[in-house]
Amino acid sequence: MSRFWSDQVHGLAPYVPGEQPKSSRLIKLNTNENPYPPSPRAVAVLEGSLGPGLRRYPDPASSSLRTAAGARQGLATEQVFAGNGSDEVLALAFAAFFQQRGGRVDPLLFPDISYSFYPVWASFFRTEYATVPLSDDLTLDLSPYREGRGAILFPNPNAPTAMALSLGEIEALLADVPDRLVVVDEAYVEFGAESAAPLVSRFENLLVVHTLSKSHALAGLRIGFAYGHPDLIEGLERVKGSFNSYPIDVIAERVAVEALADEAYFTECRDRIVATRDRSAARLGDLGFVVLPSRANFLFIRHPKVAARQLFDSLRAGGILVRHFAQPRVEDYLRVTIGTDDEMEALVSTLEPLLPRA
Amino acid sequence: MSRFWSDQVHGLAPYVPGEQPKSSRLIKLNTNENPYPPSPRAVAVLEGSLGPGLRRYPDPASSSLRTAAGARQGLATEQVFAGNGSDEVLALAFAAFFQQRGGRVDPLLFPDISYSFYPVWASFFRTEYATVPLSDDLTLDLSPYREGRGAILFPNPNAPTAMALSLGEIEALLADVPDRLVVVDEAYVEFGAESAAPLVSRFENLLVVHTLSKSHALAGLRIGFAYGHPDLIEGLERVKGSFNSYPIDVIAERVAVEALADEAYFTECRDRIVATRDRSAARLGDLGFVVLPSRANFLFIRHPKVAARQLFDSLRAGGILVRHFAQPRVEDYLRVTIGTDDEMEALVSTLEPLLPRA
Repeated sequence: MSRFWSDQVHGLAPYVPGEQPKSSRLIKLNTNENPYPPSPRAVAVLEGSLGPGLRRYPDPASSSLRTAAGARQGLATEQVFAGNGSDEVLALAFAAFFQQRGGRVDPLLFPDISYSFYPVWASFFRTEYATVPLSDDLTLDLSPYREGRGAILFPNPNAPTAMALSLGEIEALLADVPDRLVVVDEAYVEFGAESAAPLVSRFENLLVVHTLSKSHALAGLRIGFAYGHPDLIEGLERVKGSFNSYPIDVIAERVAVEALADEAYFTECRDRIVATRDRSAARLGDLGFVVLPSRANFLFIRHPKVAARQLFDSLRAGGILVRHFAQPRVEDYLRVTIGTDDEMEALVSTLEPLLPRA
Repeated sequence: MSRFWSDQVHGLAPYVPGEQPKSSRLIKLNTNENPYPPSPRAVAVLEGSLGPGLRRYPDPASSSLRTAAGARQGLATEQVFAGNGSDEVLALAFAAFFQQRGGRVDPLLFPDISYSFYPVWASFFRTEYATVPLSDDLTLDLSPYREGRGAILFPNPNAPTAMALSLGEIEALLADVPDRLVVVDEAYVEFGAESAAPLVSRFENLLVVHTLSKSHALAGLRIGFAYGHPDLIEGLERVKGSFNSYPIDVIAERVAVEALADEAYFTECRDRIVATRDRSAARLGDLGFVVLPSRANFLFIRHPKVAARQLFDSLRAGGILVRHFAQPRVEDYLRVTIGTDDEMEALVSTLEPLLPRA
């Protein structure tokens, strides 16, 4: 603590990211990274002649990157915003769209069980918000959101539940609340859910947020996007230009453009992860786990007879990192990133002796 | 404009970065980049095996980078903060330290002629501020700052004037205002001014901000630092953790650590730039220019007989980019980055026919 801190700093409870251990001997299934390397095309950029060019500032508009990302969604460059990871994109969206007018406040709505950074940004940007409980089965029901008046934010698939809404459900919501901004955080959408990105040309109240961290194995690079009406993108650009003009560095932009261009490699890795996920879900089911139906690159599981924290600790002792959230309603669950087949096999065989016989 | 923008967005006037032209045929002396490539050690990292590791998130604490930067200043890791360029570091410092308490407000003080991002951040973070005029000769006099009660922010050397304060002047200010935070933005300090970084162990009211953009030819990479008392660094970490957990990507951290370790290369390039600067200042003086005494990697010059805007346009037509600020008190000046000797020779020979004979 320092007497020079702004008042706001005293009240901040920063987001706690998943552990990034220094040891590479651990099996790391705790932060939803991709088990395969990025596209060889992306890696090849690093072996090119980028180094000397580092003395120049990046393109502040990240034009080539935005164009590449937009093309993949059938969108124009001016419908795309790029930032230093989808966390920065979401943070700037809080600043651009969720800081309410004085007087009567319509709180921002998001799910009670969801990405734990949302309430942190709300505190940082002094955003009034209310959480909407997931249903008893942890699915996301959009009906209660229709009753509020503030902006709406949710992940699809939701994290950490891994379950997804259909595109039809999202489209119906957008049509029902034309004067309220709806932000769909699609960090995990590529692993089996339907993206709402194509809808941004029809619904000016929609902003869709993507990241290359998981889908394109570029968590280490920090690249995120928002897709929306050009007026929404301009709002984000204004906020960005008032915070940090060049959030994406020269190397990151080049590597990301190549990764986006290599659709075949993306599809191959994505399909492997989905196949591993479905096999792993079946294996864990055989061990007696309740496995929520996943459309993401992770599983949300609980065992009716063994406490999640106990399993977490035993896995950790066995060199396998997963994630446990000590949070009401989900403290019985573990979130397990889909690794390689070998890593998932190690998970299953480490779990097996910890469980009562089925 | 969009009806979904927060009120704040309507009032924002984002910072305007120097032009980054797509053409590489221009001589680019407008954004104070380094004319030489980064250290070969830094470039070599790109040819290593970093690519596959990109699938993992970075170290959120950027520990190896902070340790390397601190060691260079004789400081411990906990006295160092690292961010996505010094712009992000300064933005987070506004959030951490310059958002005032309600009621009576002691405005932040910074110079009237200075880095044009300061008032932009003040607007974004709703910081009351007052500018303190530079002296008539455009030097920075610290006396008026002693009379206020708010925090103090200035660059040393100042931009765009290129002139520096001595370490003794800064030390005297710190001792005189022990209850006010003093932030010294040393983006250009390596080109001939004295850094206040070693003073952070003695003065808990001092925060010093550095960047690798100019000194280490890494503008394309976006790496900045703040040095200060561990309590100040903790304030910045809290704000960072409430905004974006991983602002520095895996490649950027590795490249920057290597660049920081190559002190011999840094010194060689820095000395060349300083020598070119001093030769260029003399040549421009011979052409009749008033050249402010520079301790930076740029010159701030005016010609008594030819308007700066006219010279700017003619240089541009001749393929040479410099920077002109259409701002009271300095509209007669051009800011010229120090390029290679050949580039500066081209500048002089393009200027010569535009000027009346001496």
